[in-house]
Amino acid sequence: MIDSNTNVLVISAHAADFVWRGGGAIAKYVKNGANVQLVVLSYGARGESNDLWNIEGQTLENVKTTRKEELLAAAKCLGLTEENIEIWDYQDYHMEINEERMERLTRKIREVKPHIIITHGPRDAFNPDHESVSKFVFDAAVLSTSNGVRLEGTTTAKQAKIFGFEPHQSEISSFHPDVILDVTDVYEQKKAAMACFGAQGHLISYYGYKAELRGNHARRCSGNNSYKQAEAFSRFFPLVGEELV
Amino acid sequence: MIDSNTNVLVISAHAADFVWRGGGAIAKYVKNGANVQLVVLSYGARGESNDLWNIEGQTLENVKTTRKEELLAAAKCLGLTEENIEIWDYQDYHMEINEERMERLTRKIREVKPHIIITHGPRDAFNPDHESVSKFVFDAAVLSTSNGVRLEGTTTAKQAKIFGFEPHQSEISSFHPDVILDVTDVYEQKKAAMACFGAQGHLISYYGYKAELRGNHARRCSGNNSYKQAEAFSRFFPLVGEELV
Amino acid sequence: MIDSNTNVLVISAHAADFVWRGGGAIAKYVKNGANVQLVVLSYGARGESNDLWNIEGQTLENVKTTRKEELLAAAKCLGLTEENIEIWDYQDYHMEINEERMERLTRKIREVKPHIIITHGPRDAFNPDHESVSKFVFDAAVLSTSNGVRLEGTTTAKQAKIFGFEPHQSEISSFHPDVILDVTDVYEQKKAAMACFGAQGHLISYYGYKAELRGNHARRCSGNNSYKQAEAFSRFFPLVGEELV
Amino acid sequence: MIDSNTNVLVISAHAADFVWRGGGAIAKYVKNGANVQLVVLSYGARGESNDLWNIEGQTLENVKTTRKEELLAAAKCLGLTEENIEIWDYQDYHMEINEERMERLTRKIREVKPHIIITHGPRDAFNPDHESVSKFVFDAAVLSTSNGVRLEGTTTAKQAKIFGFEPHQSEISSFHPDVILDVTDVYEQKKAAMACFGAQGHLISYYGYKAELRGNHARRCSGNNSYKQAEAFSRFFPLVGEELV
Amino acid sequence: MIDSNTNVLVISAHAADFVWRGGGAIAKYVKNGANVQLVVLSYGARGESNDLWNIEGQTLENVKTTRKEELLAAAKCLGLTEENIEIWDYQDYHMEINEERMERLTRKIREVKPHIIITHGPRDAFNPDHESVSKFVFDAAVLSTSNGVRLEGTTTAKQAKIFGFEPHQSEISSFHPDVILDVTDVYEQKKAAMACFGAQGHLISYYGYKAELRGNHARRCSGNNSYKQAEAFSRFFPLVGEELV
Amino acid sequence: MIDSNTNVLVISAHAADFVWRGGGAIAKYVKNGANVQLVVLSYGARGESNDLWNIEGQTLENVKTTRKEELLAAAKCLGLTEENIEIWDYQDYHMEINEERMERLTRKIREVKPHIIITHGPRDAFNPDHESVSKFVFDAAVLSTSNGVRLEGTTTAKQAKIFGFEPHQSEISSFHPDVILDVTDVYEQKKAAMACFGAQGHLISYYGYKAELRGNHARRCSGNNSYKQAEAFSRFFPLVGEELV
Repeated sequence: MIDSNTNVLVISAHAADFVWRGGGAIAKYVKNGANVQLVVLSYGARGESNDLWNIEGQTLENVKTTRKEELLAAAKCLGLTEENIEIWDYQDYHMEINEERMERLTRKIREVKPHIIITHGPRDAFNPDHESVSKFVFDAAVLSTSNGVRLEGTTTAKQAKIFGFEPHQSEISSFHPDVILDVTDVYEQKKAAMACFGAQGHLISYYGYKAELRGNHARRCSGNNSYKQAEAFSRFFPLVGEELV
Repeated sequence: MIDSNTNVLVISAHAADFVWRGGGAIAKYVKNGANVQLVVLSYGARGESNDLWNIEGQTLENVKTTRKEELLAAAKCLGLTEENIEIWDYQDYHMEINEERMERLTRKIREVKPHIIITHGPRDAFNPDHESVSKFVFDAAVLSTSNGVRLEGTTTAKQAKIFGFEPHQSEISSFHPDVILDVTDVYEQKKAAMACFGAQGHLISYYGYKAELRGNHARRCSGNNSYKQAEAFSRFFPLVGEELV
Repeated sequence: MIDSNTNVLVISAHAADFVWRGGGAIAKYVKNGANVQLVVLSYGARGESNDLWNIEGQTLENVKTTRKEELLAAAKCLGLTEENIEIWDYQDYHMEINEERMERLTRKIREVKPHIIITHGPRDAFNPDHESVSKFVFDAAVLSTSNGVRLEGTTTAKQAKIFGFEPHQSEISSFHPDVILDVTDVYEQKKAAMACFGAQGHLISYYGYKAELRGNHARRCSGNNSYKQAEAFSRFFPLVGEELV
Repeated sequence: MIDSNTNVLVISAHAADFVWRGGGAIAKYVKNGANVQLVVLSYGARGESNDLWNIEGQTLENVKTTRKEELLAAAKCLGLTEENIEIWDYQDYHMEINEERMERLTRKIREVKPHIIITHGPRDAFNPDHESVSKFVFDAAVLSTSNGVRLEGTTTAKQAKIFGFEPHQSEISSFHPDVILDVTDVYEQKKAAMACFGAQGHLISYYGYKAELRGNHARRCSGNNSYKQAEAFSRFFPLVGEELV
Repeated sequence: MIDSNTNVLVISAHAADFVWRGGGAIAKYVKNGANVQLVVLSYGARGESNDLWNIEGQTLENVKTTRKEELLAAAKCLGLTEENIEIWDYQDYHMEINEERMERLTRKIREVKPHIIITHGPRDAFNPDHESVSKFVFDAAVLSTSNGVRLEGTTTAKQAKIFGFEPHQSEISSFHPDVILDVTDVYEQKKAAMACFGAQGHLISYYGYKAELRGNHARRCSGNNSYKQAEAFSRFFPLVGEELV
Repeated sequence: MIDSNTNVLVISAHAADFVWRGGGAIAKYVKNGANVQLVVLSYGARGESNDLWNIEGQTLENVKTTRKEELLAAAKCLGLTEENIEIWDYQDYHMEINEERMERLTRKIREVKPHIIITHGPRDAFNPDHESVSKFVFDAAVLSTSNGVRLEGTTTAKQAKIFGFEPHQSEISSFHPDVILDVTDVYEQKKAAMACFGAQGHLISYYGYKAELRGNHARRCSGNNSYKQAEAFSRFFPLVGEELV
């Protein structure tokens, strides 16, 4: 059950990943009262802002400013406020992971103490940053639970469940849809959030179609016809619990 | 949530499979009030009764009688009564699947209208019967939902979730533990049920150790140290629902 | 290059499979002058006509009649005429493959001598018929090339390239999109063909979305932005040729 | 160690499979004194005798006669005598497995009591017979060890190690070379055996090249430069023993 | 179709990789008028020059000189001139990839604007350098297409098709032969090129045998008996196009 | 055959890995007279000493001291003396691999000239250090055989066989049990060694159960009922030899 005791940490490699791939999940958890924290590691200025760079005289600072406005507007549509969001402004394409960054994320996980982490899955064709971030998050999550990893001012976290976003081209990224999350009741919010990324119209329709396809799969796998739109996620390790779900 | 509205159908290829591999799950669902139905397809007289055949002058009828007594006693330990159990007495090793049997199982699924089906997973090294039964159950489950498959006196079922037992040698059977079910609170019942198969002492200890190992995995994956014993299952298709579990 | 020397054989398990999954390919080959032959193995009366069976007083004969009208209308939209189509009217769900049917299909392949065969791929979750047909077609294709398989009145075929349709839920069917075929220039025909299956509105939109997603993948993998809609296929064995394509 | 207490059973789907793919292994075991028994299930008259059928006026009986002469001559080169060979003369392409045949092979295994079974591996692209035979042999081997499978005049066998031949196109058959067997010291015998299949010159050179490539792999994996020619096999289940080999 | 508008970039980790594994492809593209550029990242002085180091008093400089002469001679046999070749002289075993090198290769790709890139595939047992280079090339190819990656004096490239060389031991390197390229008409050139690496006689025969085996596969998969020798490649992502090839 | 000419090198990421996962193998090789060398890369102070850090006022130095005492005591139980052991005291969680460390391990391999290397396998869920060490050891083993890798005072090693420990959660680590080693005759030693890690009682029972389960698998796969306890290992590349084992 989702409620105000549920802590969720979303880690997005670039400015818009959390919207295309997890916007429904975020809106759903926020709506149900969960404490959702978002870390955006980069603006995606180099690798995911092609349309902006097509503008004559574009500059890196200006791209970042635009992306920041878009991502904050989108996050707002999903129910997040600025206090829930950190932007770490790493360079993208390629994103480098080093010891200082590992410690920073480990600290963040210990601070949030998430029950659920949502981030990129291990394989994502055409997007090496997403693969690096997936390993980065997993490794930091492991460190966060180990009390021999001494970080002043922190206490260890319990092992969070980790879910992977669906990559853009799922089959060539070895994606397995372990969980299909119904997002019907928050889908209007996701649509509004996607619309904030005006320069990427092709992705808005793309992820709109995806939501419908996953809704179809949700109906077929469950026999429940009330599902309209859905998002798919991979699990990083087995589900553990008190019933067969 | 498990309650009296939860219908569960367990399909076991041989006399004892449901105990070694799903005894905890059965006891747990029964204990929580679910309606659990068990179909045992064969006595395992040819393929899984080696110890009985070591007795001088053994006969097929006698083996079946012994296996029947054992399985009913074990089922009782798990909380099942004879009304919950059907034994179809097919020949094992090899178990043949034909059209009449497919119709029979399709009818059974339509009658029980299970939310959950528990049976053998698709691969099980050294046990061709288990692999045949896995496909048999899956195919019947598909037929049961299709209203063009006209079986007098039946109405279509909704798509059940299907879970696969852990095979004996998991890695060489490509088993993936999608769900690890905590069975701590019913583990004494499972132990009692296993003890009913007196001639198979090596399996009693084997599945006892398994339960402990899966309990360890349950703790590591969840951070929840109250889990002591567990059972692992594969899922036949994605989990669909309203939260990330 | 596609021209009037190109022979194509499409084998569809049920009435509408060739439209949802290969309608663009068929229309494209017909448009470019290829000789396209279609074999529809069944009407899908039991397994893929749920909506028709929801009509009070429905009969098997009536379902078949409806499905036949629909499939012929759809085939016409794709450019096929009745001479190009055979309907073998096998029972579906489950479709049985036997020696007589194997010989019939082997004969058909020897008669058409296809350069390309398009049919179901080896795995298709929730659709056991599609899996049976995939093996059926592959095995018949092997037999068709062997001159020790003596079938009066036939001569052996050369090994055809075999392509697998994209299954409904690709990732859980281990589908690999080896070839993404641009169908932009025939997409209106495919839409018209899909519209012939009036009772299956949810599939019409489903496969419409799919075409757009595959169009997006086509653009990303090639850098060619003229691609709008596409269909994906698996290959049954390696591409052989005179250049790296 | 190979010696006169070592029982080996080789099961070949067609007339020449045991030569191309396991001729070196057979010669090596015979040379070292092992008791090697060969069962050839068919003459391969329909599926693997293309060259013979190119002869004007060819008949099935004549093809079988030719294949029989070739296979006996080849077996002789490998050190086998006619007492070591059974030809079951099943129809090939497709080879049907039924209950009577399963019992026959189970009996054979119980009679030979092999320590090692060599046969086709589970996947073999373009050769459905090989895949059927692989499952046939594995299933019979399982039955042979179960004392509830009562076959008059037989006693149960111990579980044999089972090795799979390398298929013709290894990568598209998911072949894993678990064991690479040095056949340098018997390679001349294998060459002589291959030469008995005069009509299949392209295979003689093909398997000659293969032996050299596997010899190269043997050297690279072991650092032992005395290996010249080798054969690769898959294992059906883990190696068990007293050292790490 | 290959012609003078076809740009090809070949990236070879060590001095001879492009010859053993892609010499036929290079010769074929050159012969058909394509613009083929070759980057050799290292001389392979540490890891692939064992025979040279067996010479008493050998020095690193001398090894490099010898390798350079050999590779230039071999490239000439394939139709390349020195203007088509760059040798970057990185240290091998292990080859380090850093930001400066990533930028250099990204620039190179933007300069050549290849339609086709040929390099090492993602897995290559016993050769960690090949695996590093595979990722290096893929990542640089992704960067080369993104207009947010600003490199003065360059313009973005379109996404190239990327093909992976066959690794030395294909099955244990998870190699999938997606494309088998007929090299019959340029095979004499490849033989001449291989002969330039005099100290590696065992590889000359090894890759000679490989070419024959792949020729056999080419014939079997296509039914085209004019293919004699061939080379196999993996594809990094799906084929996109206007027909089913 | 194991004897005094057999050189074994065991490389353990943390203080206790070699005991839980390879203690039986070590004891067996020592008992049979082999020359077994152990390198422990770290004390596991940060990642595998949770229980010690639960002690009030714990320090890193004290944790290392405790771990050192435990590991030396355990190694002694397995028959190793301090001359056979090197502790490199790298920081764990995460363990960094750099050029100096690569050279150090390459030297060590050239010094020991192992026939067998035992270390971590390539995948180990929840344990990124184990994965890094697996690649570290494999790469160093490759370098150790190449005579172009000039390290003063060393001579090249022959290619060792490399075996991977069973990871803690085998199925989610893609572990394949290629070899199951009977450790019945040294199992008391392993138990004694495990008991040296007093603070990790849950692992002592865990690996005790594992040994029994693997013993069961050993019996089933071989038909040899004398096997009681066993350890499973993966192979890094194919077995090469003179018989089918």
